[in-house]
Amino acid sequence: MTKKTLLAFLLVGASPLLPADRIGFLPASREAEDKAERVFIDTPTPDKAKIWLAALTERPHVAGTPEEKHEAEYVRDRLKEFGLDAQTVEYDVFLNHPKNVSLKLVEPVEETLSLREDPDPRDKNSGHYGMLPAYHGYAASGKAEAQVIYVNYGTHRDFERLKSLGVSVQGRIVLCRYGANFRGLKVKEAQERGAAGVLIYSDPADDGYMKGDIYPDGPMRPPSAIQRGSVQFLSLGPGDPSTPGYASVPGAKHIPREKMDGIPKIPSLPIGYGEAEKILRRLAGPRVPDEWQGGLPFAYHLGPGLAVASMDVQMEDGIGPIYDVIARIPGLVEPDSLVILGNHRDAWTPGAVDPNSGTTALLETARGLAAALKSGWKPRRTILLASWDAEEYGLVGSTEWAEDHAAEIKAKAVAYVNLDVAVTGRDLRVSGVPSLRDLVREVASSVPEPERGSTVGAAWEKRERSDWAKSGDVDLGHDEAFDLQLTPLGSGSDYTAFVDHLGVPSLDFSFTGSYGVYHSVYDNFFWMSHFGDPAFVYHQAAARFYGLLAMRLASADVVPLRFTSYARALRKELASLHKEAIRSARGLPEGDEKAGITPDFAPVEGSLGELEAAGKDLDAAVDQRLSGGGLPSSKLDDALVQVERAFLAAEGLQGRPWFQHLLVAPGLTTGYAPWPFPGLTQAVEEKDQAAYDRESRRVVGVLREGVDRLKAAAALARQP
Amino acid sequence: MTKKTLLAFLLVGASPLLPADRIGFLPASREAEDKAERVFIDTPTPDKAKIWLAALTERPHVAGTPEEKHEAEYVRDRLKEFGLDAQTVEYDVFLNHPKNVSLKLVEPVEETLSLREDPDPRDKNSGHYGMLPAYHGYAASGKAEAQVIYVNYGTHRDFERLKSLGVSVQGRIVLCRYGANFRGLKVKEAQERGAAGVLIYSDPADDGYMKGDIYPDGPMRPPSAIQRGSVQFLSLGPGDPSTPGYASVPGAKHIPREKMDGIPKIPSLPIGYGEAEKILRRLAGPRVPDEWQGGLPFAYHLGPGLAVASMDVQMEDGIGPIYDVIARIPGLVEPDSLVILGNHRDAWTPGAVDPNSGTTALLETARGLAAALKSGWKPRRTILLASWDAEEYGLVGSTEWAEDHAAEIKAKAVAYVNLDVAVTGRDLRVSGVPSLRDLVREVASSVPEPERGSTVGAAWEKRERSDWAKSGDVDLGHDEAFDLQLTPLGSGSDYTAFVDHLGVPSLDFSFTGSYGVYHSVYDNFFWMSHFGDPAFVYHQAAARFYGLLAMRLASADVVPLRFTSYARALRKELASLHKEAIRSARGLPEGDEKAGITPDFAPVEGSLGELEAAGKDLDAAVDQRLSGGGLPSSKLDDALVQVERAFLAAEGLQGRPWFQHLLVAPGLTTGYAPWPFPGLTQAVEEKDQAAYDRESRRVVGVLREGVDRLKAAAALARQP
Repeated sequence: MTKKTLLAFLLVGASPLLPADRIGFLPASREAEDKAERVFIDTPTPDKAKIWLAALTERPHVAGTPEEKHEAEYVRDRLKEFGLDAQTVEYDVFLNHPKNVSLKLVEPVEETLSLREDPDPRDKNSGHYGMLPAYHGYAASGKAEAQVIYVNYGTHRDFERLKSLGVSVQGRIVLCRYGANFRGLKVKEAQERGAAGVLIYSDPADDGYMKGDIYPDGPMRPPSAIQRGSVQFLSLGPGDPSTPGYASVPGAKHIPREKMDGIPKIPSLPIGYGEAEKILRRLAGPRVPDEWQGGLPFAYHLGPGLAVASMDVQMEDGIGPIYDVIARIPGLVEPDSLVILGNHRDAWTPGAVDPNSGTTALLETARGLAAALKSGWKPRRTILLASWDAEEYGLVGSTEWAEDHAAEIKAKAVAYVNLDVAVTGRDLRVSGVPSLRDLVREVASSVPEPERGSTVGAAWEKRERSDWAKSGDVDLGHDEAFDLQLTPLGSGSDYTAFVDHLGVPSLDFSFTGSYGVYHSVYDNFFWMSHFGDPAFVYHQAAARFYGLLAMRLASADVVPLRFTSYARALRKELASLHKEAIRSARGLPEGDEKAGITPDFAPVEGSLGELEAAGKDLDAAVDQRLSGGGLPSSKLDDALVQVERAFLAAEGLQGRPWFQHLLVAPGLTTGYAPWPFPGLTQAVEEKDQAAYDRESRRVVGVLREGVDRLKAAAALARQP
Repeated sequence: MTKKTLLAFLLVGASPLLPADRIGFLPASREAEDKAERVFIDTPTPDKAKIWLAALTERPHVAGTPEEKHEAEYVRDRLKEFGLDAQTVEYDVFLNHPKNVSLKLVEPVEETLSLREDPDPRDKNSGHYGMLPAYHGYAASGKAEAQVIYVNYGTHRDFERLKSLGVSVQGRIVLCRYGANFRGLKVKEAQERGAAGVLIYSDPADDGYMKGDIYPDGPMRPPSAIQRGSVQFLSLGPGDPSTPGYASVPGAKHIPREKMDGIPKIPSLPIGYGEAEKILRRLAGPRVPDEWQGGLPFAYHLGPGLAVASMDVQMEDGIGPIYDVIARIPGLVEPDSLVILGNHRDAWTPGAVDPNSGTTALLETARGLAAALKSGWKPRRTILLASWDAEEYGLVGSTEWAEDHAAEIKAKAVAYVNLDVAVTGRDLRVSGVPSLRDLVREVASSVPEPERGSTVGAAWEKRERSDWAKSGDVDLGHDEAFDLQLTPLGSGSDYTAFVDHLGVPSLDFSFTGSYGVYHSVYDNFFWMSHFGDPAFVYHQAAARFYGLLAMRLASADVVPLRFTSYARALRKELASLHKEAIRSARGLPEGDEKAGITPDFAPVEGSLGELEAAGKDLDAAVDQRLSGGGLPSSKLDDALVQVERAFLAAEGLQGRPWFQHLLVAPGLTTGYAPWPFPGLTQAVEEKDQAAYDRESRRVVGVLREGVDRLKAAAALARQP
């Protein structure tokens, strides 16, 4: 770093401290890369980010609407303007939009409940212009009028608990709060238990006043704010529900609405806590279990009671076009090898946070990469920049594209880097497969922290270490040193098809803070410029982080995947599952609950030992080869990339064959939250010893295949 | 059990299942004991309990008032009426009462804040008759007018956290919520940091609507309810603050108010959440840390802000009489050996729960014991039944009596069994020294569960097991089977002098449930008869449990203390401390916090191993001797009783010499909650390696003395 660069960094945070080494680079390649990265890193600016975000969030742009088509064109045109080769890719998919939705209380008083948010005079984007009334994507049309039962978060366990408390939801309207699991799974549980309809509200304990000041005085959710969102049964499989498991390309067979098993058959609506309070206060019946109490100022009851609600949901269903935008930066040496960056663009509302903070960062990344290309940078591999549509309905744009290009992705995709919400605050969080951890740390330590000095990597590690110190497990007799790992990937964004269906090493990241207006009209430019990132410097940081990841993935002489810590990351997750199993086996003396199983963790632990040894050996072999200045065969790249594919099983997970990765998946009953070792976790959850034994053998099988591939790669690295 | 008895048990729960064995009894003694116990157990009735409770709670009866003197006479007269030898014992102690107390908001609006509770027309005892305005016992007189700062629970850690957040309480009024530690320690922390005054309120998250329906519709705290209570610095030593460490007998030197270091020098007041909200809503400054948010429906801020409060506390200080009542049932064989049952009688309010549910049970216990005596029962040891005064100010009546009789108690007290709150619901909870665990289990399984069938012992074990299954630690590699133990004793009731100062094996128990009206005017007969124990059957169960404990302690041929599980109970506590130390040593990357120490737990663990072996051997020796029908020397009784005394150190704990027990004490910074191994815990908390090493040697020293005494007792048990 020159003195001038250092000064610039200290004064305006414009250029980062670049590390001495780069994973996967030959010593001789570093200077050119260094030069290109400097051009890249100096390109994204807060001012440009602010301009893109304002333009992208001028109007709500729900998938399937003209506004969202316009948004696609805007993004495509900007990418072209930067000098990139960008195309719109269209898929015809099943979507729905509200024709007529309404909700009222009919007993003990008749009162219409609002499905619109209150505008605030300070915020021009909080009005109703262009906003549809609140609804759930893929909601079923239908009517329900019934007594109401409160079911906490509406998780599988919550419904089981309710049953044990002697309260039935049969024929009733379920009222549950957002949080804990994916909303579609709340509706699935209610539907399976015979409920007539579902209302989902945002409790102030979860993202309202109990978590901070509320909009427009603070970033948290005000009483009228409504969380829209899809009610697809996400953990069974994302994408167009009319083409399950295959792409919605021209000529594809679309199954009819009534045969779609992955979306609800009973109506549901989202509401704010201002309206929910009117129902909740009128529930009688037993007081809720302690953990079910929310943040409204009275004791919650299970119901039923005086409250009778009436809901009417009439949706316009249909097959129509959505628009992915794909820009391609061709690779010079390995043009078929793909480094894919993706971000969705469609939003329920103006979407300043979700997803257009990410779209803004993607545009600034693209502008930076274009600048680097102009300066002479020549990436070894091809980079694709994708702007997905219809993510909000069920990761539709990315899933259809991935299914459409499954063969080439499986053969040649090096990594998929997702960016959904880029910025709600300052704290970097990264989820991903363990083989990308080292690269992430390296890149994070190359990006300046905009407001707190040092780098985003240092701030990230400090916060992770602090969280561990405060709340990490303590095991007597197990030395648990701090070990910075990526969080396992769950679902709820566009990496799902890449990692879970196709076994592509994937990442997802976000700069996070207090954010209570998710999927409401207040997720808009006012919110971002007052609370999320008023100086737009974290948008700049996100673009830098995103682009540097892409540059190193695309330019490294050997793909920068590393395997030493893979087994350690898995072992940590296995230990958590082991503890969960022990706790479950303790059972509860009350009632008829089935005792937990006592699974044998030794076989998987044994395989993890082999994986660790093979990973270490491979990393050492690659390092040695590169530091000696010798370029290994390009077969090594393929070998490294194919390690993650070893963890796939063609028959998929139990009951959800689309999910093929045996080491990580969205939780069957959580949707968002990951289940590491999903087969084992499911067996422990369902207390099924036979399933555990079967899944354990499957896991051992793919781990052994992984070990074989690591060994083969190490041999290639050592091949003269 | 005869068929008739069984039938009676099944039909009306009148007679318990008696176990085949009784700890410490010769086979030949069991029949007589069985007969006496049946007479006892059939005596307490719900009807009588209801009569006593109504009479005892007719008016508020604060220590030092004529109403409380009247209450003492009422209890004494009942005991005499039952045929027992009962006396009033008077001590002249320092107390204070409010002359004039007031609180107002002076900015941003002037508004007087209420120090009285709202009466409810359904509840005749909720009016203001005889109620003093809310105040804190032992509060300092003084005035303060200042901005307000919110400090969560006002624990040592909370104040440290506030400091790290850059907010000072110097010259300001501290507003904190009840909970987490003893209220006097909140004032102590505020005083040490230069606060001008302290307001303590009950947050609805802790015992208000977030925990259940509020009075008069439910058992939890309504907005106007105020938690009175003492602000003595309890963890430094209880009792009359004018006679620290010695009894307030005639001629004792009383130190002046200004020299009393164990009570506050700055004014404080308790308030309800209805009034607290008026201040809290007006605090500005940073938003509180997440865990500091309470249950009022807005985001809490640290302050300062617009709110300026003005408090005026004028107390009438003075030395005056308090009245313990002591009934004596002389022992036939070892009249100097004492089994002491104690319950306080004074209350801040009508006190239906605290303490007169306990007083009611004590009276029914006394009536039952009197009946057993009349039927011919002849206890081997002397039983004392104590009704303490001025517990609420600082365990004054019990502490002065214990200091007054320290020599005879230390020499001959077998056990002290405390009963403060007897009933707030159905769930038995027992705290005590581990040597009483087996007796407690045995007795609990002899008392019928009034509403759920089986015995209170079975219900207790079931609930404890369930708590463990839900929330117990899971350590991989450590097999943690469920082990029912008594909770360690902290402080906040009258066992303190007995266990912590004199080393008497002590117990405390309560039947617990939802109870949000602690120390408010709503702790009255209406509350108990609507929510706590409408049928008064748990009062009956408490009396049975209390009296059976006394009978077995007094009648057993060998005192029923057992030592096999003593070391196991301590080991569990040591493991918790070890984990706490590991967590603390992880440190936090933020700021200047001192890193935790890495203490060596091996020496204490080693001593616990010896204690376990010696305990097992002793129990086996006693069992063998008794089952052989041989009565050991009465020296064995003394030897067993003196084991607990081995754990005392004459120089006491660091900074608080009155506390002499090295294995358990109230937490220095918690007051209520126990610190097992208080010296070790303090060293870990204060991150003081030298103190840890010193305290570890002291603990090893007393444990070795305990081992020697166990061995000597075993030799006596085996002596022909």
